[in-house]
Amino acid sequence: MKADLEFKYHTQANKNHESFKKETLLEYLGRFKKIIESESVGFFRLSEDTTQLKAAKKMFEKFKHKKHFVQVGIGGSALGPQALIDALKSDKKVKFSFMDNTDSEYIADLLDEVNPQEALFYIVSKSGGTAETVANFSIARNFLKKNGIKEEGLKDHFVFCTDPNSGHLRELARKEGFACLEVPSNIGGRFSVLSNVGLLPALFAGISIDDLYAGANDIKESLLTEDVEENILLQSAAHIADLYRTAQPAVNQTVFMPYSSRLKTLSHWFVQLWGESLGKIRSIDSANVGLTPIPAYGATDQHSQMQLFMEGPSDKILMILEIKNRKTDFELDSSLGMEPAQKLSPYTLNQLLEAQINGTLQALKAQKKHVIHMSISENNARNMGAMALFFESLTALMGEYLDIDPFNQPGVELGKKYAYEYLKNLS
Amino acid sequence: MKADLEFKYHTQANKNHESFKKETLLEYLGRFKKIIESESVGFFRLSEDTTQLKAAKKMFEKFKHKKHFVQVGIGGSALGPQALIDALKSDKKVKFSFMDNTDSEYIADLLDEVNPQEALFYIVSKSGGTAETVANFSIARNFLKKNGIKEEGLKDHFVFCTDPNSGHLRELARKEGFACLEVPSNIGGRFSVLSNVGLLPALFAGISIDDLYAGANDIKESLLTEDVEENILLQSAAHIADLYRTAQPAVNQTVFMPYSSRLKTLSHWFVQLWGESLGKIRSIDSANVGLTPIPAYGATDQHSQMQLFMEGPSDKILMILEIKNRKTDFELDSSLGMEPAQKLSPYTLNQLLEAQINGTLQALKAQKKHVIHMSISENNARNMGAMALFFESLTALMGEYLDIDPFNQPGVELGKKYAYEYLKNLS
Repeated sequence: MKADLEFKYHTQANKNHESFKKETLLEYLGRFKKIIESESVGFFRLSEDTTQLKAAKKMFEKFKHKKHFVQVGIGGSALGPQALIDALKSDKKVKFSFMDNTDSEYIADLLDEVNPQEALFYIVSKSGGTAETVANFSIARNFLKKNGIKEEGLKDHFVFCTDPNSGHLRELARKEGFACLEVPSNIGGRFSVLSNVGLLPALFAGISIDDLYAGANDIKESLLTEDVEENILLQSAAHIADLYRTAQPAVNQTVFMPYSSRLKTLSHWFVQLWGESLGKIRSIDSANVGLTPIPAYGATDQHSQMQLFMEGPSDKILMILEIKNRKTDFELDSSLGMEPAQKLSPYTLNQLLEAQINGTLQALKAQKKHVIHMSISENNARNMGAMALFFESLTALMGEYLDIDPFNQPGVELGKKYAYEYLKNLS
Repeated sequence: MKADLEFKYHTQANKNHESFKKETLLEYLGRFKKIIESESVGFFRLSEDTTQLKAAKKMFEKFKHKKHFVQVGIGGSALGPQALIDALKSDKKVKFSFMDNTDSEYIADLLDEVNPQEALFYIVSKSGGTAETVANFSIARNFLKKNGIKEEGLKDHFVFCTDPNSGHLRELARKEGFACLEVPSNIGGRFSVLSNVGLLPALFAGISIDDLYAGANDIKESLLTEDVEENILLQSAAHIADLYRTAQPAVNQTVFMPYSSRLKTLSHWFVQLWGESLGKIRSIDSANVGLTPIPAYGATDQHSQMQLFMEGPSDKILMILEIKNRKTDFELDSSLGMEPAQKLSPYTLNQLLEAQINGTLQALKAQKKHVIHMSISENNARNMGAMALFFESLTALMGEYLDIDPFNQPGVELGKKYAYEYLKNLS
């Protein structure tokens, strides 16, 4: 079954406006094509060759006896893999942990759960020098040595993932013979979920990485079609951009709300992708721009953020994701002697959730809120690959609308500089 | 050691402005006192008597042999307990799960991990009729019966937590003799973390609930003092309100960013409290108001949202929480033959994190962003109790600034109505 992401738009954007004219949309399509064809931007073409797939599978064969997979990385080097695993993990025999912070209490809790013999640490840093990741690599290595793993045995517990040519991790791998996968030079951290960064952990989780790629390929036509009315990328971008530019109040916040606990982490992956790519000082006028991403998930957040989405300022566009079919279900019929249980007893849990999504959509429409209603037939690898590529593409295209470079992150450099100065003063 | 929450304000709010005048601050203090003294609002006085503590402890004694605690609740009936447990859990023998969604795939995964004999399901619904919670209660009950628990044995696997007098859960408890704790009538779900809703799971997690209460009591003086310069509640509210009313652009988003993985869930608790309480249609002018809450945690989000916070629009105030001392630490010294590891080797992980917080704060200041820098000496129950009361108080007071009722949630009713209609049409 092919990926089958579908879109309905219920927003107050003015479809007669300039933004929705065919020539405008085609112009943006042209700009998008130029980006994804450029040498330095590789995310769109990643699924077109099998180099990464093959390398990940080969590495998996070598280490598949390991029962605890510890991803050591931060930002894009952790969020994509986490999203994939939470969404799709089927192999329950393998445990996953994420060393994605420099919080000692968290790291101590995590290592407490690690049996050194069974552990594989996957050290992921595109640059090869990310401070947090290098620190956690040191800690992991010291932990193994303290727990009986000899110097010469360390290689059985580490795989690196870094730039193919440059950087300190690559150098170390060469020098000491550590196993090492590549992140292609033209794939930035937050666009790396379908590279080896995400593929190796996906294999350990029993996820079909061929399906991830097939899903990304399935959706390409609907991102590139010149039939602009049918193009989900152009239509989505036009709604978001038009509401940002012309609505009162300006719509400058983007909520991503899948109705699924398993896709909760996908919201956090989206937050990094959208926030770090689009939150920029624009060179042309030094304006501070950005479309603040907000993570949510249903139905849970109907008892949290939904009150604000419903009655608060109309400065948000909600991308609500519905999963039409689930692999399992529960009867709500019970002999519970209470009226609300009896009211639910003719239904199943999936029907309740379906009613909640539809009730919420209807209420949001009644309040004239801005909603993009996305749906997939089921939560599977093929649709996950398609969604990854869709959001990456949308992010890249929104960079054109905002007139900024979505692929850099200059705003974190100053903090790093100050942090290193602070460290130096400690010694 | 007493709770020791400290505050520093680094914002562009104009301290000469009306909002910061002594008489204005005292007026808001008066309004706040009026709220917390009213019969219908109980959160501030909760820690002043020991009724809830005693009831929770007694219940714990009865069920403490259970090794898997499953909280069945949604919104405030799950988020507060989750935040407490993630932050402070010390008893590793007890497993925790949260049935907080109507997602069948998630519920199936969760029940897969439950050994029926060892499980205690804590059914939490203030009203006693929350659809999601009733549905999951039915499912849990069917699960136990299908797995060998006899009808007469069910009582050993359930505790309810609901309104002391009314509602369907209370009625069922009376009729069939289920164990039942009270949520006081004047405590709403999102203000319930220090009621039995959070206290019973806290006991199972090995958390001192006396310390939670002591912490809440420790901080009261600094929330009520008429020395307005020292009053952390009045100063925090004045900064937030002044920036919302007078800054360009208006500051209408509130980021909560503890530097700790263990406090990540506390951000999500904050999101519900802040979002659902303050996102409202204001009666006086039908305006859509709200201060959109944004969850974050450091240092991880320095590689995600920080780029946006640093270079994006200055429409956010960041409440950054630092933990000064941690119970553990890791040497970064290793024999790793790579330059970035050698650069870090004189330091420890806690020093690195300290440098990251300070570097980030310094960079945010340099960019003239708005920051409230909060700190606690350590992550413990006493400080958690203090922070819970601080944020609940701040939320209640911000309701005065926005001129809305922070204790209701009318905006979710319409969605519920449509959802029930949808369900009826299914049958």
